[in-house]
Amino acid sequence: MKHLLSIEELTTTQLTSLLDLTDHMVEISGRPVPKVPALRGRTVASVFFEESTRTRLSFETAAKRLSAETMTFNVGTSSVNKGESLRDTIETLAAMGVDAFVVRHKSSGVPRMITEWTDASVINAGDGWHQHPTQALLDCHTITRSFGCGNDLSGRTVAIVGDVKHSRVARSNIRAFTMLGAEVVLVAPRTLLPPEFIDWPVRTADALDDVVGDIDVLYLLRMQRERMDAALVPSLGEYSARFGLTSQRARQLKHDALVLHPGPMNRGVEILVDPADLPGSRILEQVRTGVSARMSVLYTVLSGGSVPPTGGAE
Amino acid sequence: MKHLLSIEELTTTQLTSLLDLTDHMVEISGRPVPKVPALRGRTVASVFFEESTRTRLSFETAAKRLSAETMTFNVGTSSVNKGESLRDTIETLAAMGVDAFVVRHKSSGVPRMITEWTDASVINAGDGWHQHPTQALLDCHTITRSFGCGNDLSGRTVAIVGDVKHSRVARSNIRAFTMLGAEVVLVAPRTLLPPEFIDWPVRTADALDDVVGDIDVLYLLRMQRERMDAALVPSLGEYSARFGLTSQRARQLKHDALVLHPGPMNRGVEILVDPADLPGSRILEQVRTGVSARMSVLYTVLSGGSVPPTGGAE
Amino acid sequence: MKHLLSIEELTTTQLTSLLDLTDHMVEISGRPVPKVPALRGRTVASVFFEESTRTRLSFETAAKRLSAETMTFNVGTSSVNKGESLRDTIETLAAMGVDAFVVRHKSSGVPRMITEWTDASVINAGDGWHQHPTQALLDCHTITRSFGCGNDLSGRTVAIVGDVKHSRVARSNIRAFTMLGAEVVLVAPRTLLPPEFIDWPVRTADALDDVVGDIDVLYLLRMQRERMDAALVPSLGEYSARFGLTSQRARQLKHDALVLHPGPMNRGVEILVDPADLPGSRILEQVRTGVSARMSVLYTVLSGGSVPPTGGAE
Repeated sequence: MKHLLSIEELTTTQLTSLLDLTDHMVEISGRPVPKVPALRGRTVASVFFEESTRTRLSFETAAKRLSAETMTFNVGTSSVNKGESLRDTIETLAAMGVDAFVVRHKSSGVPRMITEWTDASVINAGDGWHQHPTQALLDCHTITRSFGCGNDLSGRTVAIVGDVKHSRVARSNIRAFTMLGAEVVLVAPRTLLPPEFIDWPVRTADALDDVVGDIDVLYLLRMQRERMDAALVPSLGEYSARFGLTSQRARQLKHDALVLHPGPMNRGVEILVDPADLPGSRILEQVRTGVSARMSVLYTVLSGGSVPPTGGAE
Repeated sequence: MKHLLSIEELTTTQLTSLLDLTDHMVEISGRPVPKVPALRGRTVASVFFEESTRTRLSFETAAKRLSAETMTFNVGTSSVNKGESLRDTIETLAAMGVDAFVVRHKSSGVPRMITEWTDASVINAGDGWHQHPTQALLDCHTITRSFGCGNDLSGRTVAIVGDVKHSRVARSNIRAFTMLGAEVVLVAPRTLLPPEFIDWPVRTADALDDVVGDIDVLYLLRMQRERMDAALVPSLGEYSARFGLTSQRARQLKHDALVLHPGPMNRGVEILVDPADLPGSRILEQVRTGVSARMSVLYTVLSGGSVPPTGGAE
Repeated sequence: MKHLLSIEELTTTQLTSLLDLTDHMVEISGRPVPKVPALRGRTVASVFFEESTRTRLSFETAAKRLSAETMTFNVGTSSVNKGESLRDTIETLAAMGVDAFVVRHKSSGVPRMITEWTDASVINAGDGWHQHPTQALLDCHTITRSFGCGNDLSGRTVAIVGDVKHSRVARSNIRAFTMLGAEVVLVAPRTLLPPEFIDWPVRTADALDDVVGDIDVLYLLRMQRERMDAALVPSLGEYSARFGLTSQRARQLKHDALVLHPGPMNRGVEILVDPADLPGSRILEQVRTGVSARMSVLYTVLSGGSVPPTGGAE
């Protein structure tokens, strides 16, 4: 496995191997000195054409825990803005000695294009509405380890709530959750479901109230305010009324149901309770696990992934 | 001592312990390889809601000399600007493994609020008009070590000149200087003294000429141009005429008087001579000591502070 | 050699020593762990008043391979924009423990001015239209090692094509190439030749077609779109027609001729073929060598340069 571009192209075995390797990375991350020399001498470049401080810092922290060097390519001030082609930018960075590119771009497919221009590994950190595979990986790890169910989600129902249409997180997670055996129900206004959803192995619901008492995992998507402007949703208030997690709905959740959100949260829109008051909230656990999941991916693409990093400290 | 939020909450013993530990850090900083493994595996995040490149770099240099990892959270391009709450930002970073937050914010009290949201240590790197405790620490170290007077400033007079009202530096320093026994005189237009000054253990003067020949330390504050617009001072020229350090006033200073400034200087406003021509200038020494003082604080909050870092190189 | 400000002030021996040391750095850069402890404990600060992500990252990668600490001074958000003087900025950074400044500035001569304010080393990373000495160094290394001709370019002809007038790259390279014995021919519209060129040891040509079949190295300069606005060139189309590297001209090149470009390329302006299709292209090799050439410079100015770094890994 040289690149991680989408969940679609992983076999179930590759997905579960990454989840198991993440357990190992969680152990490393919990040490007094959370660092191993596994990727010493490797350089990981973050190339975010869409800024996302939290995702970038998560990857860079992961790289440092494996002793890789990090290079932050700041798109905003770079020659990309002077008309340099994306290809020239990537080739230039690769020539400086980059071993893995962590790429975010507003256009679907850019990470895959980049694999054609460089021998370095490419990790998709979110491309357009397409995929965000490390998010799915950390979500699967968070859920399965919370339930203590190995890598098996069969018999579990996950509701993904909100703007599925514009969400790479939803696309990656629908695939990953179903690979692990979960049933997925999409809870969204029809305007925020993509036309292709009818071919997906999911069912749908029109309102959160229809499913809230029956699900094992409530996965809230970020509701982007831009969608309101596009008249896809009548108003934030109406959205919250039908799809937001209110305290009333929180009380209807099963006692061991989990609540996840990829962040950053729009409090008052998709979430109207304080997650700190929800026993089932795994929102901070997602962030914590995110670093370990990204360590697992970086290690796998840069080392072949066959042998876990040595247990000793650096 | 888990946090450093203000000088107010330090005992004199804690203050002098930090100053003594700074001596040790000065020694480390002077080595050919100025680095010790004291904080290996710890992560220090700079979260500056008000940018201050010099203060941020000083803290990050301090962290690196102690072998901590550094993480720079760039507020300008972050989700904070997409409406994410400050609390969610801090909790997210903490979940990635931050051990200490170095925080600057334009509102007083934000660093203290942050201590309620995280188990990590919090160091106030300047909050509103409230406090800037590491500045006071480095200033006290610079002054006491210049005089060779241990940690004792009794019998010494420090004049703090300028915009006391809007200055966190002044508030932290008034407290710190008086804790060490100094007499403090505030030299400022009445419009730039805060109402509460009448309760402070200080005296005041209306013009620099009234005190310049009698003081041991001249501490010039940065005169912010914004104050002129607010009509708190008639003009820069009038300000300089009564409160600026001119070459004439420099000649009236006692032969061993010190001159300090927290930087960045407004040459031609509060300082009208070249500091390089002032034998008593400690302005660059303040910057130099600043790194060591911040090492002292980081070490104290992250290690309990009881045992100084090992003398050996990393 | 404490600073590197221009190629002009290097002796031929110093230039060839830097080129030979670069061979050593190329070997280090090719190791599985491309890092040596040569500059442990040293701090290299990038101070780019004109942003250039690629040059800054190249220097910072070079510094890290030698185990130096790096400090990035972000001019855009710094006190320089609050009116702090350049001198105060440099003195402040130096007081924090900077050993070498890597400086880019839009005004010629700024790097030299900085040497008067600090004991640290200063490396010119491009100043105005004046000099860009590390670019010349990496170009000389790329060319001589491609030809396998030691450090000797006698009997070789290099054509520098484009906007010579506004190019620090051209000024540094004309000097460096002629020091190594090459003949230099400038190919440019008269409006883009500086008046002083008549004193340079070069010949000129009015169109690329006049020389393309006879040269050993084709060095294309970046054609900045701003020049069009200034009416120095009638149009991009006319420029490309006379000075651009088209596929037709590429076919006229000698079979072993090299093609170089300092980047970032304006495809469709000075270069109308895909460099990947040019066997003689060394454009990515320039980037690769750039890191090693800068390692050579950093090592030389910070260690005296007499003894190459130890061969062992860190």
